[in-house]
Amino acid sequence: MEGLTKLEHLGKPRVVIVGGGFGGLELAKALADAPVQVVLIDKQNYHTFQPLLYQVATAGLDEGDIVSPFRKILSEQANFYFRMAEVKSVDPAARLVETSIGCVRYDYLVLATGATTNYFGDEEMAKHAIAIKSVDDAIELRNTVLSNFEQALQLGDREQLNSLLDFVIVGGGPTGVEIAGALSELRKHVFPKDYRELDFREMDIHLVQSGPVLLKGMSENASHQALESLKKFGVQVWLDARVKSYDGYTATLNNGKQLIARTLIWAAGVTGDPVPGLDATCLLPGNRYAVDAYNRVQGYENIFAIGDIALMKTDAFPEGHPMVAQPALQQGRLLGQNLHRVLTNRLMQPFEYDDKGSMATIGRNHAVADIKLFGKEYHLQGFIAWLAWSVVHVVALVGFRNRLMVLLGWTWSYFSFDKGLRYIIGKTKSPLVEADVEGKAIV
Amino acid sequence: MEGLTKLEHLGKPRVVIVGGGFGGLELAKALADAPVQVVLIDKQNYHTFQPLLYQVATAGLDEGDIVSPFRKILSEQANFYFRMAEVKSVDPAARLVETSIGCVRYDYLVLATGATTNYFGDEEMAKHAIAIKSVDDAIELRNTVLSNFEQALQLGDREQLNSLLDFVIVGGGPTGVEIAGALSELRKHVFPKDYRELDFREMDIHLVQSGPVLLKGMSENASHQALESLKKFGVQVWLDARVKSYDGYTATLNNGKQLIARTLIWAAGVTGDPVPGLDATCLLPGNRYAVDAYNRVQGYENIFAIGDIALMKTDAFPEGHPMVAQPALQQGRLLGQNLHRVLTNRLMQPFEYDDKGSMATIGRNHAVADIKLFGKEYHLQGFIAWLAWSVVHVVALVGFRNRLMVLLGWTWSYFSFDKGLRYIIGKTKSPLVEADVEGKAIV
Repeated sequence: MEGLTKLEHLGKPRVVIVGGGFGGLELAKALADAPVQVVLIDKQNYHTFQPLLYQVATAGLDEGDIVSPFRKILSEQANFYFRMAEVKSVDPAARLVETSIGCVRYDYLVLATGATTNYFGDEEMAKHAIAIKSVDDAIELRNTVLSNFEQALQLGDREQLNSLLDFVIVGGGPTGVEIAGALSELRKHVFPKDYRELDFREMDIHLVQSGPVLLKGMSENASHQALESLKKFGVQVWLDARVKSYDGYTATLNNGKQLIARTLIWAAGVTGDPVPGLDATCLLPGNRYAVDAYNRVQGYENIFAIGDIALMKTDAFPEGHPMVAQPALQQGRLLGQNLHRVLTNRLMQPFEYDDKGSMATIGRNHAVADIKLFGKEYHLQGFIAWLAWSVVHVVALVGFRNRLMVLLGWTWSYFSFDKGLRYIIGKTKSPLVEADVEGKAIV
Repeated sequence: MEGLTKLEHLGKPRVVIVGGGFGGLELAKALADAPVQVVLIDKQNYHTFQPLLYQVATAGLDEGDIVSPFRKILSEQANFYFRMAEVKSVDPAARLVETSIGCVRYDYLVLATGATTNYFGDEEMAKHAIAIKSVDDAIELRNTVLSNFEQALQLGDREQLNSLLDFVIVGGGPTGVEIAGALSELRKHVFPKDYRELDFREMDIHLVQSGPVLLKGMSENASHQALESLKKFGVQVWLDARVKSYDGYTATLNNGKQLIARTLIWAAGVTGDPVPGLDATCLLPGNRYAVDAYNRVQGYENIFAIGDIALMKTDAFPEGHPMVAQPALQQGRLLGQNLHRVLTNRLMQPFEYDDKGSMATIGRNHAVADIKLFGKEYHLQGFIAWLAWSVVHVVALVGFRNRLMVLLGWTWSYFSFDKGLRYIIGKTKSPLVEADVEGKAIV
């Protein structure tokens, strides 16, 4: 390992947090008054509000509206230190984290590295598909969709044309449903005005879901409503179907059906993003760390894991908590309090998940929500669920500026039926269409 | 040349506009009611509001706030067609423009390709400097500034540290002055909070101007005020100085002074961006096309040039009009009317430049403006000039959404003293600092 990074020594125990997603950021905040030095390490210098990534991907929001620099969020917190670096491994014996900028000593280590896209070992899929886990992904999808249409203008052959206009979305969870809905809104309200030369009746949006229902894990009502809404919006939903292979042009389903599309969006699964160096036995299937009720990684006294990367088996959740924002936030907050307790000789409290329910939006005035309040569950749908979804997401955003900008952007889009951010800046996966497939000159 | 692009034939004369800057876009709009087909070709699918690029570069605005997709701006204009392509050459005999996506026929061709950064043949400078001509440039500068500071945290050696904290800006025109001012504001209000571990008294901002005054072309009052304001803000202004060489680390001035900085911002000059294929005699020094009073390129009946790429010699402007937005906008508008006139058998009107004055902002409450109203010139400075500058720029932005977002962003920044968009997304020119210069382990 290389030399140590240059970090002030505060003469206090140092808590090193790897990853500034919902869990890591909440933990850093919760340690504001604890007698510790907090060191957050992340590859990016900003926190990403992942639930709205799909809106960046579909030109509804600017990436600046949903990210917030860590240094800005925590500039007032005196014990907070940030390092932009990639974590390479952990050495538990030496209490060191090896990073791309040198080693960092820790007294307590918290792994909050989240989850990464799971292609289940399909390398061809990984090469050709677009995921939506990061801002880079979202920008790439936006650019690809727009580039596709720019290129479609040059094509005469119908199959070639359709390969650029059609989209396959794999995965019927919230992300898949939300992207399908957003694309169908663009098809209805925005693209026909932008590309008058194209016939958007030719644009097909396929949503492929391996199970029998959409939004698995939500109520039957929500699943049903989501399916009905998507059908109404003209999305072709393939239930009980899997994409067996995809070569960048043809997606072959396990039922034999072939879908031609140059763009396939992969929202079908995630897997934990572990850090090398810990004992292999603490890593469970799904690449998640086995943790106890205090989020302590099995076999370690001073190493913790929170959020998607942690798997806490409980009676209510024998396979761990859902890999969404709420458990991460709650575990981050509790762990902050628990570390404070330990350092002031108090007892740690075990984690109990407070499930507030879940929601997904399908499009303008259409959403579904299962809300848990005072032990009761309420099922909302349509406009009221859409309003609830909007309010919850604006409030949950980090930073007043982002809240204001998102609220205004949405209000603007709602009344204008427009999504204004249709510019191509940065990388695209759109293929350069060299010539018409029939080889004839394009006239 | 390859096959023709697939473009509808409207049975009307076709006006092909190359470049959608201020001139090209204004021309396209001015042809809305003319009996022509308007085809705009641009490398990007969006118009860039160049005067505010420096704010994107300094984390004050999101790139989405200052760009607007062409298709969105002109979605209501029935005779407007857009193609995203790179223009490779023109064949005046065949009346064809060769592009990256095929050939486009024209009846009238308008070159509005603008200007590009002029490094005066200094290849080493071109390699190491960052320019501010495009959104990509602005994003690169923003990322580089922020990455520099992230890396500076790791350094112990003072020269190395300063090489990352210091900035050299070459060129004392509006762009150079505005960037110097914006960086000094960040140094005062933002960076010290973000990077408490760094001592920002060490951050030097050098502005190198080849002539004896800043803002050449503006009034003596404006030049003087800009210099005073920048000095007050702690910018080191080098007048009558040129950067002789820059190797990515040391900038050597012609007076022998050496400035150590890993980031040099080049705002020192532009040159026309001509298209191959026209007769060489019509290209004047500075790579601008010689045009007559109707913006017709010398020697051609149906080829025009407007904006920065055009050089119209007049008594008042023997070296052509200033390469800024106003002449481009006015030439675009007039040429639209003139083409309409020609096609309806009326006489074209010669161009007369209506100089409305010019302005530059230095920072919070500090700007200078020379405003020409009813033949009189007014010199404004300080808060009132800053307010005038803000109003003019918000009003001039394309699209109501952009105006609203910029206005809000500015209001927010003004009262919070914050520039919120300090995230690193996309490419950076910041070097990876491998080790301390003394070779010692960083502890």
